[in-house]
Amino acid sequence: MADIFQNNKTLSSRDIHFIFEQTVLKFASSPLQTAIPPIILDIMSKRIEHTLLKMDATPSELTTLCNETILHGFRGVCCLPRYIAHCRSVLRGTEALVISVVDFPLGGATQRDVASLVRSAISDGADEVDMVLDVPSLKSGELNTVFERIALVTEAASARPVKVILETACLTEPEIVTACAIAGTAGAAFVKTSTGFASRGASIRDIEIMKAAVGDSMRIKASGGIKDAVFAKRLVDAGADVIGTSAGPACIA
Amino acid sequence: MADIFQNNKTLSSRDIHFIFEQTVLKFASSPLQTAIPPIILDIMSKRIEHTLLKMDATPSELTTLCNETILHGFRGVCCLPRYIAHCRSVLRGTEALVISVVDFPLGGATQRDVASLVRSAISDGADEVDMVLDVPSLKSGELNTVFERIALVTEAASARPVKVILETACLTEPEIVTACAIAGTAGAAFVKTSTGFASRGASIRDIEIMKAAVGDSMRIKASGGIKDAVFAKRLVDAGADVIGTSAGPACIA
Repeated sequence: MADIFQNNKTLSSRDIHFIFEQTVLKFASSPLQTAIPPIILDIMSKRIEHTLLKMDATPSELTTLCNETILHGFRGVCCLPRYIAHCRSVLRGTEALVISVVDFPLGGATQRDVASLVRSAISDGADEVDMVLDVPSLKSGELNTVFERIALVTEAASARPVKVILETACLTEPEIVTACAIAGTAGAAFVKTSTGFASRGASIRDIEIMKAAVGDSMRIKASGGIKDAVFAKRLVDAGADVIGTSAGPACIA
Repeated sequence: MADIFQNNKTLSSRDIHFIFEQTVLKFASSPLQTAIPPIILDIMSKRIEHTLLKMDATPSELTTLCNETILHGFRGVCCLPRYIAHCRSVLRGTEALVISVVDFPLGGATQRDVASLVRSAISDGADEVDMVLDVPSLKSGELNTVFERIALVTEAASARPVKVILETACLTEPEIVTACAIAGTAGAAFVKTSTGFASRGASIRDIEIMKAAVGDSMRIKASGGIKDAVFAKRLVDAGADVIGTSAGPACIA
């Protein structure tokens, strides 16, 4: 089993459990509280996070996103930090969540600044925040730094659920499993596949690996390139709890 | 001339001057100090900002970027904020600049947070910062908000040169000219074409428009998709002062 980290092999369930447990053990001395939000399992619309993250999206396009979210009863909207207050205001009086990405899509801020950005997002009214995994530190084997960044964010989010975007397009299978284990022990509620800005978005295999790793201990969000109801359903069948998509209505059609 | 804003027509020099002057007049009551850094005009290598902005770039890849920059005598490196301190340290004792993007590539932070990110970048050792134009506000006709965001950044940069990334792929020709005028009056030293994350990077036409608009009052950085010396030279001939590229050595070959 010593070679499971050494190449891009397809992992077995046993490999996945082994890597996950070993990584959890490494960080078990500092387990953080993870609040796992409930998901309404039998209605696809309640799993949809209707998403608009284009750099040129205008406030009126965000208003449309919010109105479609209300109309279809989606879980919430996913927006850039600059639009949290606007979405909060349009969604007032509804159950829809305002979910904000932070330091997105590159995760290029310092640890100090990413924590500060999360505090801003929460103070502006975000119900959940989606952060980017520290991929360079994972690639460099600096797992403590990967842990620290997530722990800083979960602390800054003060009990609001945090999702960690793995950017699976950039990771090997062992790295996906390792990232899931670190995210969970650092207090994240979700692992999420993709930013939508990499070479590919969510795959069925991503979700299978993530589900085999985290079981019921975390939630899973599939995102990136999800454009229709058939693919959305396949991702849910593979283990995705939530679907992030800029094509919300098409995903429940 | 009333229809120059109304469609995607190709602007004449006269149209460009008209739009530029009208926009400058609108903001002339609050002109800010712009420090225009000198450019060594006769050596291509001194125009190159050697760039690495991939989300999975490791510290050792950034070290290589810095070493290539020293070897070839490039103007500087362009990196994510998390790597400013690292690049600063590798480039110590050389003339190469550390240039950091901020709130990149989507410009998704609030005004308050973007200013704070710039203060962090300067305090970590950035010599120049490349910010993203507030494209949604430009598209919505909220030119005061576009101005305000740039002015907040130039103030936060405390005399370090600021570049405004227009993301020309998302703009019409009149919008490019308007953005140049606002950037200059708000105290930016450079206008820059692209993030490298949009549908296209720099074009010759972009640089022609920007040069016709700003003349010698600002510097121009071409960026996005510049992979060889032939294209780099054409961009310089069209008016670009600086070339941002992840292929620095190939651009001086």
